[in-house]
Amino acid sequence: MSTAQIPIHRAVMDDSLRKATATRAWLAERRLKMFNFIGSPGAGKTALLEALADALAGRLKFAVIEGDCATARDAERVAARGISAIQIVTGEGCHLPAAAVHQALADLPDGMECILVENVGNLVCPAAFDIGETAKIAVLSVTEGEDKPLKYPGLFRKAGAIVLSKTDLLPHLRFNLDTCRQAIRQINSAAPLFELSAKTGAGLPALADWLAQQKS
Amino acid sequence: MSTAQIPIHRAVMDDSLRKATATRAWLAERRLKMFNFIGSPGAGKTALLEALADALAGRLKFAVIEGDCATARDAERVAARGISAIQIVTGEGCHLPAAAVHQALADLPDGMECILVENVGNLVCPAAFDIGETAKIAVLSVTEGEDKPLKYPGLFRKAGAIVLSKTDLLPHLRFNLDTCRQAIRQINSAAPLFELSAKTGAGLPALADWLAQQKS
Repeated sequence: MSTAQIPIHRAVMDDSLRKATATRAWLAERRLKMFNFIGSPGAGKTALLEALADALAGRLKFAVIEGDCATARDAERVAARGISAIQIVTGEGCHLPAAAVHQALADLPDGMECILVENVGNLVCPAAFDIGETAKIAVLSVTEGEDKPLKYPGLFRKAGAIVLSKTDLLPHLRFNLDTCRQAIRQINSAAPLFELSAKTGAGLPALADWLAQQKS
Repeated sequence: MSTAQIPIHRAVMDDSLRKATATRAWLAERRLKMFNFIGSPGAGKTALLEALADALAGRLKFAVIEGDCATARDAERVAARGISAIQIVTGEGCHLPAAAVHQALADLPDGMECILVENVGNLVCPAAFDIGETAKIAVLSVTEGEDKPLKYPGLFRKAGAIVLSKTDLLPHLRFNLDTCRQAIRQINSAAPLFELSAKTGAGLPALADWLAQQKS
């Protein structure tokens, strides 16, 4: 079986890579950056996008592409903040495919300066699929435990930036911030780390500034 | 490509199903039950197994099979509570494959009455892969938000029992328990629901009783 599987897998990946490459070209033509937010379900990705809608108002015009197995709830939440948002429903799909993201680009409004993608809630699979993004942004909530970067290193290794979210909950958790920082740095010593709470706004300006600076 | 993919995919699934069927036969011969705990990274699955080690002491002899992309941390944590634990490291694999679980069975000690499997932290993929378990147990943490059963219905639909974990954090969250219960019941009206905190022990006896009653 294994010899038969190889060309099939390669063909599927080639197609995915073609779509990701086409997306990169589309973004370059328009001088647009695209950031791919990846994290577990409930890591606070949508709340972060909602908070960024306010924090970046007047500084960076961005649209959002949302991925979920079912429902359009996240796109509705983001749209309620005045942000153009497109929902991709993946069914049983565990990640956003490059083709679906590429197709969604055509429906985005003109005049954007940046695209923020919220991938399907999953700390494992989306990290393996290039969608043509400028960078992956790993989102880890403090409620998930300090050791997750070591147990799920794939995403953290590839991330261009790392967000540690829900820091407002730290007083109520057995969570050692230094242990988590060390775990992150063991896997990725270079990516900027943003420790923040979308709920209180603490730490949010640093991420907003970083995103605004990425503007071409 | 698609016509070529079908037989390959079917062959892979057939092999997985064969292993799951072999596991079911192995369990039946020994009158053993096996529960497959599935949830996001940081949903509190390992903490739950640690708490069950104490709650089930003297009532149900169980062993644990752990799945993670990297490290043997979870098996070490469970073993520290006096429970036999085997770690399966999946690398980039997003779920425990039936073959790996079947192979691990041979290394379990004799005299067990139950096997608890902690799958790779992932709310999507592990639900799609039968490992020969008696039932899947969905674990959702209250920190993940009320809407997750609607957004990731696959697991909740298939679950034989559902755990809502980390209830000790409810006072610190914007989380509506009734909304979450309704979301769960919209997807699965039959499975018993256990609302608990592994940290404080609240609600844990009900799950421990349920597991002890499953003994053949």
